[in-house]
Amino acid sequence: MSVLLQTGRVVTADSDSICDILVEGETIVGLGRGLPQPAGAQVIDCTGKLIVPGGIDPHVHLSMPFMGTFSSDDYETGTRAALHGGTTTVIDFILQKQGGSLRSAFEEWSGRATGNALGDYSFHMAVTDFNPDTKEEIQEMIAEGITSFKTFMAYKGALMIDDAQLVGLMQEVRKYGGLVTVHATNGDMIDTLVAQHRAQGQLAPLYHYRSQPEVTEAEASGRFADIANYTGVNAYIVHLTCEGALNQVRRATQRNQRVLVETCIQYLLLDASLYENEAEGAKWVMSPPLREKKDQATLWAGLNQGLVQVVGTDHCPFMWEQKLLGKDDFAKIPNGHPAVEHRMELLFSEGVNKGRITPQKFVEVTSTNAAKIFGMFPRKGTISIGADADLVIFDPQKKHAISAETHHMNCDYSAYEGWELTGKIDTVLLRGQVAVDAGETKVAKGYGRFIKRDKPVF
Amino acid sequence: MSVLLQTGRVVTADSDSICDILVEGETIVGLGRGLPQPAGAQVIDCTGKLIVPGGIDPHVHLSMPFMGTFSSDDYETGTRAALHGGTTTVIDFILQKQGGSLRSAFEEWSGRATGNALGDYSFHMAVTDFNPDTKEEIQEMIAEGITSFKTFMAYKGALMIDDAQLVGLMQEVRKYGGLVTVHATNGDMIDTLVAQHRAQGQLAPLYHYRSQPEVTEAEASGRFADIANYTGVNAYIVHLTCEGALNQVRRATQRNQRVLVETCIQYLLLDASLYENEAEGAKWVMSPPLREKKDQATLWAGLNQGLVQVVGTDHCPFMWEQKLLGKDDFAKIPNGHPAVEHRMELLFSEGVNKGRITPQKFVEVTSTNAAKIFGMFPRKGTISIGADADLVIFDPQKKHAISAETHHMNCDYSAYEGWELTGKIDTVLLRGQVAVDAGETKVAKGYGRFIKRDKPVF
Amino acid sequence: MSVLLQTGRVVTADSDSICDILVEGETIVGLGRGLPQPAGAQVIDCTGKLIVPGGIDPHVHLSMPFMGTFSSDDYETGTRAALHGGTTTVIDFILQKQGGSLRSAFEEWSGRATGNALGDYSFHMAVTDFNPDTKEEIQEMIAEGITSFKTFMAYKGALMIDDAQLVGLMQEVRKYGGLVTVHATNGDMIDTLVAQHRAQGQLAPLYHYRSQPEVTEAEASGRFADIANYTGVNAYIVHLTCEGALNQVRRATQRNQRVLVETCIQYLLLDASLYENEAEGAKWVMSPPLREKKDQATLWAGLNQGLVQVVGTDHCPFMWEQKLLGKDDFAKIPNGHPAVEHRMELLFSEGVNKGRITPQKFVEVTSTNAAKIFGMFPRKGTISIGADADLVIFDPQKKHAISAETHHMNCDYSAYEGWELTGKIDTVLLRGQVAVDAGETKVAKGYGRFIKRDKPVF
Amino acid sequence: MSVLLQTGRVVTADSDSICDILVEGETIVGLGRGLPQPAGAQVIDCTGKLIVPGGIDPHVHLSMPFMGTFSSDDYETGTRAALHGGTTTVIDFILQKQGGSLRSAFEEWSGRATGNALGDYSFHMAVTDFNPDTKEEIQEMIAEGITSFKTFMAYKGALMIDDAQLVGLMQEVRKYGGLVTVHATNGDMIDTLVAQHRAQGQLAPLYHYRSQPEVTEAEASGRFADIANYTGVNAYIVHLTCEGALNQVRRATQRNQRVLVETCIQYLLLDASLYENEAEGAKWVMSPPLREKKDQATLWAGLNQGLVQVVGTDHCPFMWEQKLLGKDDFAKIPNGHPAVEHRMELLFSEGVNKGRITPQKFVEVTSTNAAKIFGMFPRKGTISIGADADLVIFDPQKKHAISAETHHMNCDYSAYEGWELTGKIDTVLLRGQVAVDAGETKVAKGYGRFIKRDKPVF
Repeated sequence: MSVLLQTGRVVTADSDSICDILVEGETIVGLGRGLPQPAGAQVIDCTGKLIVPGGIDPHVHLSMPFMGTFSSDDYETGTRAALHGGTTTVIDFILQKQGGSLRSAFEEWSGRATGNALGDYSFHMAVTDFNPDTKEEIQEMIAEGITSFKTFMAYKGALMIDDAQLVGLMQEVRKYGGLVTVHATNGDMIDTLVAQHRAQGQLAPLYHYRSQPEVTEAEASGRFADIANYTGVNAYIVHLTCEGALNQVRRATQRNQRVLVETCIQYLLLDASLYENEAEGAKWVMSPPLREKKDQATLWAGLNQGLVQVVGTDHCPFMWEQKLLGKDDFAKIPNGHPAVEHRMELLFSEGVNKGRITPQKFVEVTSTNAAKIFGMFPRKGTISIGADADLVIFDPQKKHAISAETHHMNCDYSAYEGWELTGKIDTVLLRGQVAVDAGETKVAKGYGRFIKRDKPVF
Repeated sequence: MSVLLQTGRVVTADSDSICDILVEGETIVGLGRGLPQPAGAQVIDCTGKLIVPGGIDPHVHLSMPFMGTFSSDDYETGTRAALHGGTTTVIDFILQKQGGSLRSAFEEWSGRATGNALGDYSFHMAVTDFNPDTKEEIQEMIAEGITSFKTFMAYKGALMIDDAQLVGLMQEVRKYGGLVTVHATNGDMIDTLVAQHRAQGQLAPLYHYRSQPEVTEAEASGRFADIANYTGVNAYIVHLTCEGALNQVRRATQRNQRVLVETCIQYLLLDASLYENEAEGAKWVMSPPLREKKDQATLWAGLNQGLVQVVGTDHCPFMWEQKLLGKDDFAKIPNGHPAVEHRMELLFSEGVNKGRITPQKFVEVTSTNAAKIFGMFPRKGTISIGADADLVIFDPQKKHAISAETHHMNCDYSAYEGWELTGKIDTVLLRGQVAVDAGETKVAKGYGRFIKRDKPVF
Repeated sequence: MSVLLQTGRVVTADSDSICDILVEGETIVGLGRGLPQPAGAQVIDCTGKLIVPGGIDPHVHLSMPFMGTFSSDDYETGTRAALHGGTTTVIDFILQKQGGSLRSAFEEWSGRATGNALGDYSFHMAVTDFNPDTKEEIQEMIAEGITSFKTFMAYKGALMIDDAQLVGLMQEVRKYGGLVTVHATNGDMIDTLVAQHRAQGQLAPLYHYRSQPEVTEAEASGRFADIANYTGVNAYIVHLTCEGALNQVRRATQRNQRVLVETCIQYLLLDASLYENEAEGAKWVMSPPLREKKDQATLWAGLNQGLVQVVGTDHCPFMWEQKLLGKDDFAKIPNGHPAVEHRMELLFSEGVNKGRITPQKFVEVTSTNAAKIFGMFPRKGTISIGADADLVIFDPQKKHAISAETHHMNCDYSAYEGWELTGKIDTVLLRGQVAVDAGETKVAKGYGRFIKRDKPVF
Repeated sequence: MSVLLQTGRVVTADSDSICDILVEGETIVGLGRGLPQPAGAQVIDCTGKLIVPGGIDPHVHLSMPFMGTFSSDDYETGTRAALHGGTTTVIDFILQKQGGSLRSAFEEWSGRATGNALGDYSFHMAVTDFNPDTKEEIQEMIAEGITSFKTFMAYKGALMIDDAQLVGLMQEVRKYGGLVTVHATNGDMIDTLVAQHRAQGQLAPLYHYRSQPEVTEAEASGRFADIANYTGVNAYIVHLTCEGALNQVRRATQRNQRVLVETCIQYLLLDASLYENEAEGAKWVMSPPLREKKDQATLWAGLNQGLVQVVGTDHCPFMWEQKLLGKDDFAKIPNGHPAVEHRMELLFSEGVNKGRITPQKFVEVTSTNAAKIFGMFPRKGTISIGADADLVIFDPQKKHAISAETHHMNCDYSAYEGWELTGKIDTVLLRGQVAVDAGETKVAKGYGRFIKRDKPVF
């Protein structure tokens, strides 16, 4: 089966040209102008359209276990929504149970994903309990194609590892050239502030924000960078939100260290003033919380400085009913929000169309860099011969509005309700199949495949 | 006329795939596997070879006027040597005469280049006298395709502009979205130190080095960044050599500024111990001088941090006889050395083969980033449909040695005599023509074309 | 002749005790409780009063030549006003004429001062033309007791020296253990901005401020620190006003350098909003200009961090008529304002009484540190046996208001008109003589003496 | 009872004069020249001698419980040795037992000290378990004159508190204007490295050093500063040893924070090469360990920059037999060394005599600053009327050598065996009593008094 995309403006991190793309099976096999149309090929006229590599969102939580229930998007609904937003691959987080093995957690997550995903997916392994047994499993997980190990510096008693474990994990991962990633906030400080606010009856969503001041993230980011520098491991900070934290990364450059950084689309576009809405602030309760305008400026600058390499989402939706668990106590609000679907359209509209980033940078931070950092390059993240035909056909002028009524995420509210965007995704191909077209889903659950990943090449 | 490159490993900044490349006329028209061979096409078997975008060296000085003579490579010999080294485009520096117009300098340089170059070329405009007349010419030069304006913070009375002029120039260039580049060393400090060494009879090449201590470059780099930040102009530091200077750039990131940085291949590979050779130290007399091992470490780190975007050469050769003008006084040694030919092979051998940088980074810093920064992208700097067919076919395993006896630069010594490299350029295409093959030059003088450049897109 | 001060609270940088002070002749000879009263001694009851060391203002301009006239306080009126404000010693700036010798400038200034001063005084030597002749005079001036050499990085063509001269001067001063001080603003940048504002008809006092943005001071401060670090000289920045500049000094600490810093009382208390008053803004036209609230916070912090050692005034008053020279053009407003008289009362009221600094810190920054840095310690700057009996008796609770009608400076306006202060100077002794008492001047012109200074001991 | 010290050179942080000092009872009552000799007064001729304020060592551990035994100096031997070295006041650390109250720990320590000390002493309270009960006791301890609260970021399970407790403690101490001090090393990292070295059979003293690399201290210092900045508490780092840590303090200055710093004499003078001596390295096993030459340079610079305010000792001696507990395993070596006796002579000889610091700075960092920071000023830390007559008479030229055979500390080895010093203490007065003279102890155990301390005034 062939697909021929004709005369689109093909944009990658390092190219920009009007041409055709020929796909055979799952793979891009030809780039050219006026390419002959193979017999039986599906032809898509891309005149006036942009074609970019399928997006990679390296930070999603699907069916994430939470207080006896799960985040509201499972692998089916979550990857379907991702596809509608041009994200053809997502990386979810396996959460080791403290006391349990990495292997068993891997099996649990695989079990939930297998046969259910519409889009491609992979896993990070969140190591929540690094001990001699876990140590033995690191190499094994890398062999399974899980080359990135997530750590939490917060959520004591549940997910957090201490600095002793962190050193040990980093040393082990370094042996095999893997990557250690981090949720970098000082959990102990936050726990104290949460307790204080609750003790004082400060229970509104605003106090979620006030319990995680910038210093809690800046401190932990610096500490993580320091320890990573000592061990020499490849290091990556997930969902970095603020000036204080990025300045720690910038400071680390002075000792010749490189710390990779992911921010999320919401931190570029939304700010903490939303928490002042007591009734609806819970919609944006996530960790770290939204920050200030100055932090947005820092993050946009970080993208152009090359110091923020990835824009993800930390997609972790909960239905409004679930959010209401915390209506009387911010600490009980499930953390997370629906985001995976609009990352690319938002970044295009607010970033490229408003002249803040180039189209090449857009591709870099939504796809190419993640592919390189997470060991899927050059199969993913680019438009080149032999690469997976993960392609997004984008109408750069089309205007549309975001709404929970039209989105595909399994969440009954939107974080961007009513936002008007310029630039809309028309068609998405995943491994050569039209997965989404004109708002219709074209692939079935189970089409998505687990992607074994290699070590970072960045 | 067509050329078909078969089954090479095509590496760009964002791709890595085994495929064929089809060239029609000057342009890449097809990428694929098993591409049909057009009638009459020249076929090149690239099996086992790397194919990368033609190199761009944005820092060369050809026929540079100097004390009544000229640097020893003219547009013919210089661009020929560049082609032999895989560099298909060079950017030279027009030097405004203090008191003269930009236009007349442009004409003088164009006159020397036109009809003589084998490879493609462009010009930066070195503004050595910014006054109301010069101001009027900025827009005009941009219309001519000269979008980058070089400034010197050293060489008072000849090339240096003071900070008053620098502010004015930056403000004017910013209006049009151009770029201001800089030779960032504190000329006043250096002049003093030179005079002091001479007064004390310290005349050996080592005192060239001692007259330009790290602080002279760090200070000026910081000052340039500060002024650029104030004006908001796109800023680029040429031939950055040392930790102190890069740390100023890193510091500037903390105020959300981006300062683009070029280093040169010699600063990554050679160090100041060479100046201790009194007899031959003049070979490496250049400004800024070679630095220390710690500075090399900083520069390699800078490449991977994304804070050093370009590796150039500052190619400015002089024959040994010319160098001997300074045999009794380092201050009379013509500054510069032969470099344009081996930039890519050196960086490949020492960088990619030794695991310091990825092949993608190699392409980025030898070609793609320069193309973007200097407004030649996507015509140059990438391998994509519609781009100029500037292609370098690289044998990644072939071993060879550098020698003045075999190099093509018009210089009777080599800065790397006897260095053994792994990875050799077999064939170079420039705009679809085989320009170099198996050590033979295949294009004639005059083939090289002036490239009108656009504003930076980075 | 003896004076006995009874039961005051004697506060120095390192003490705080209720006791008597016995003065014989010019000198403190006894400290104790219930000291016997020598025959004929003048007794002053200091119960409930503070006694602190006579203030040292190391930054004043008396009879400063300016456009054919002079700053409006001469040595008589200026030192009288200083005494009324508790400042018993001032250091003025000799300005070398470009082309002239240090010696002749010294003689000119000495001529104006000798026989006219009521209070003690010394000179800094402003080197505006460093050449081989000047170089010879450095040691000579040190022998004359002038151990601090001022440089200007602004006022090109009048006072400014370039970095070449700066290096040379620093090297020479370092040989003898002297001190190099600096007016650290980038004169070239400022000249450009002044010219631009004038060209655009922006002539109000506000544009004086806008012509000297923070970067002009931060840049020059960093450059000065860099060059001083290279030469190893003792370095001191006069009238530092802003966060950007102090951060350069803080950054320099990281390379183990110490750069001494003086701020002035007005930068701690006044801000640039005063320039928005078009009619009266000229009153505060000085260089550097007043800054922002954030800069005040930085300077107060700097005092307590020990990184700002001295609070001076840059006293340089002009009559309103003189100020009006610039009523149509900010660039013609004489720079400077009346300040020497109220430095200590202002700092006491706003600093000590408001809890921002301790009484010990107050003494340190108004007197002791300047005495040490400028080589007058332990003769000046402290209350100890053998020291000059320069003593200020302070009523810490007395309230009063500042007004041009009551001040002693020869200036027909006040920069602090109507400000209400807590804490007033009752009596001032200079070398054992009551110089001021209850608002009356008690010494005659000529009483003030030139103080030969030694090298810094800090 | 009176004592008259005649014609010494009296040096304090802000004075330097030849004079007499008259002491009545415990107090300084007169300073002057040729003071009349009271009837029955003891007269000490101090001609040619320096007189400085009695030293304050704010960091000692006497009778510190350790593995069922105690550090080898108790209050008797420890304060006697201190007196012989000119240190008239020491501050020891009460260690709260985890689970126990501050009050009971206070009583335990008081019990050991009362009646046994020869010199004056006070306590810091080491809070090792901050909980709601502890919180209640903070104000109470301050009322007892214990205004400084020590925290440990290392020694998990014994002394360490986590960041949650640290925030809470800081908030509580801040309410009352107290001070939080810290042993700033990342205990978790160290625990891991210790375990790794032991697992690999790396058991020599050198591995004590290798288990506490610079990053462990730099990281924790930065974290402590960050949290202190958030809470706004007065913050003080004890025994800071290295460039990385001081740079964190310097960085903190940029946000207008002041973090007070103590180093110890050994970190200025000794370095880690001593650990290469496998047989004797245990003598210098302490935490943090000795560092590198570059760190010494940083600390000396820090003193002169005003960023290191105090030089203490962390005196915590163990007999060689005790040290041998760790002869087969560095982790079993009791941490600490004998130091209290030679702090002042070492710093005078190596600092003042070698021109690294002024005599005033010497007084500042051995006495005055500690008195201010720890709330004993102006009773201690200075030579002024009404102050305690704690006086050290110093022969600045006398040469002597350090040896365990002659020292007074209860320790059978010296950390400085054979070091030759210039400058020796002749006589020491504590509260008016000659406590030490010509090597003889003149006061009996029980003379030393507990000093109730006030809040910091610095």
